[in-house]
Amino acid sequence: MAGRTAGDVLAGYLHHQATDFLRSLRSHGESGPDADSTRESARHLRSAARRIGGALHTFRPLTDEKWADHLRGELAWLSGTLAREHAGTARLDRLLGALQRLTAQTGASAASAASRDTPDPDAAEALLSAGAARAGALLERQITLARTRAHSAALQALGSSRFHAVADAVAVLASEAPLATTADRPAADALLPLAEQAHRRLADAVAALPLARAGQAYHAEARTADSRQDGPWHQVRLLARLSRYAQEVTDPDDTDPRLAEAGRALERHRDAAEAAAAAAAAARTPRIAPATAYALGVLHADQRHEVEAARYVFGRVWLSAPVPEPGPAVRKG
Amino acid sequence: MAGRTAGDVLAGYLHHQATDFLRSLRSHGESGPDADSTRESARHLRSAARRIGGALHTFRPLTDEKWADHLRGELAWLSGTLAREHAGTARLDRLLGALQRLTAQTGASAASAASRDTPDPDAAEALLSAGAARAGALLERQITLARTRAHSAALQALGSSRFHAVADAVAVLASEAPLATTADRPAADALLPLAEQAHRRLADAVAALPLARAGQAYHAEARTADSRQDGPWHQVRLLARLSRYAQEVTDPDDTDPRLAEAGRALERHRDAAEAAAAAAAAARTPRIAPATAYALGVLHADQRHEVEAARYVFGRVWLSAPVPEPGPAVRKG
Repeated sequence: MAGRTAGDVLAGYLHHQATDFLRSLRSHGESGPDADSTRESARHLRSAARRIGGALHTFRPLTDEKWADHLRGELAWLSGTLAREHAGTARLDRLLGALQRLTAQTGASAASAASRDTPDPDAAEALLSAGAARAGALLERQITLARTRAHSAALQALGSSRFHAVADAVAVLASEAPLATTADRPAADALLPLAEQAHRRLADAVAALPLARAGQAYHAEARTADSRQDGPWHQVRLLARLSRYAQEVTDPDDTDPRLAEAGRALERHRDAAEAAAAAAAAARTPRIAPATAYALGVLHADQRHEVEAARYVFGRVWLSAPVPEPGPAVRKG
Repeated sequence: MAGRTAGDVLAGYLHHQATDFLRSLRSHGESGPDADSTRESARHLRSAARRIGGALHTFRPLTDEKWADHLRGELAWLSGTLAREHAGTARLDRLLGALQRLTAQTGASAASAASRDTPDPDAAEALLSAGAARAGALLERQITLARTRAHSAALQALGSSRFHAVADAVAVLASEAPLATTADRPAADALLPLAEQAHRRLADAVAALPLARAGQAYHAEARTADSRQDGPWHQVRLLARLSRYAQEVTDPDDTDPRLAEAGRALERHRDAAEAAAAAAAAARTPRIAPATAYALGVLHADQRHEVEAARYVFGRVWLSAPVPEPGPAVRKG
């Protein structure tokens, strides 16, 4: 960063991301019927869109704020639309995989019967197996339907004039970034305080989480499968992502791997929480068999258990080393 | 133990337990309609019966083996009969408590909705609440019925001639213990190797458990809620109890607290496993509503989660210090 202005660094980052965005857009258009390729392109599109939006958010005071706010909003719309289709695929895989894991209890359990008039555990397994097959079929129907709708919405979005306007704005970014004169200051002077602000917001949000409890494995309160806490955790996930993206701007050669690790735990948290909600929603389908509802209950609890596990992992990662510190690259003013 | 024979020590222990047994028997008969008092007396009866049986098992070569085997069998019959009634009460408390904990999710969850077309988590909570009330009522009916039957069986047993024979045999123990001439050897020489055998059997059984996995909180395989492992864990519980009782004979002033702690984790394991099976069995009740079955599925998974937690705790206790070692009291030959 030495000798460069904040505007140089920020514009460079935005150019890079905008170029990625446009490249992914082209290959998305060229993928044709290749679903894997289309998915890959969509993933890169979302990744670039989030990074542009993240930088425009964190370093907003250095930009033409009105323009930045508008582009950020449009990119959020685009990412969200593309994400819905992706989420469906991932969620179905997760739920069907969980059902498979939960019913992988074959073989003799004669030795497992405890001694005191305990109902036969084999019977419990048989009930779960019967219900799991139906539950899987039900979830597949419902999630595939939602995914098909999301796919149509995504295609429609990508063909819309609204999207073309976004693509045009990003194309502008690829060659020039609408920045404010405040961006003319030395890079470290202007960028670091704003990145610090992002890291602080993250630290504050994490401090508000009951992490001391999350860090004790299997603590009793965790087993309330408390979805009331999901909102604050969701917020931490978004802030952690902003922190990580801020680091990519200020310290690209020395990003904190713990932020990425924490981010992965938070994404697993989000995925599991959404899967649990999907299982519960499926259980409200009219006229399903009790065995199916039972299996969905087991599945819901399993996914809430994974929410708990993700919180535990995040807590351990975070408490080993909180808010990232600016590395040497940025400090060299 | 210095200067005493094995027979002295063993007979002393058996006298003590037999006296407790007879005292509890008297107060059980005198409790009348006081249910708490009756429960306490039954608890002491089972406790003394288990200890007598345990000592007769571990130190069998020092006893009149034919007599010891017979009494041990009869005491096991008695303990088991009394335990069934106790188990019912504890199991119902456990399950109803779990349902309460699982539905303690009141209040605003508006902030907890994630962003990607996620089904409303509030709806999931509403489904669980509706089903939990019915599930609780169903479990209460079924378990109370089983408990009433167990209560009648216990009363019948305590009035039977079979029981009077057991009480007579225990009364004999209170004044003289049918021991073999091998018991005439010095206490340390004769008792320690037999106690060691018990500790080794326990250590071997524990070594066969997948403890390395149990010790990693939230590991993936644990979430198969694998009841195939329950049998081996049940066996470890019984062996740990025998180890603890053996220590009470050889080292009464210095029993290893970790054995007791491990034992508590194993009992929690057993209680949770049986509760999980009861929830699954209830889910097979004909013509229950899907919401009820759903709640029972969540409850089953919750109890299997507690099985996993108990295994984790046991692993940590055990790996901090395995097989108990004889303390100084016994070594002073």
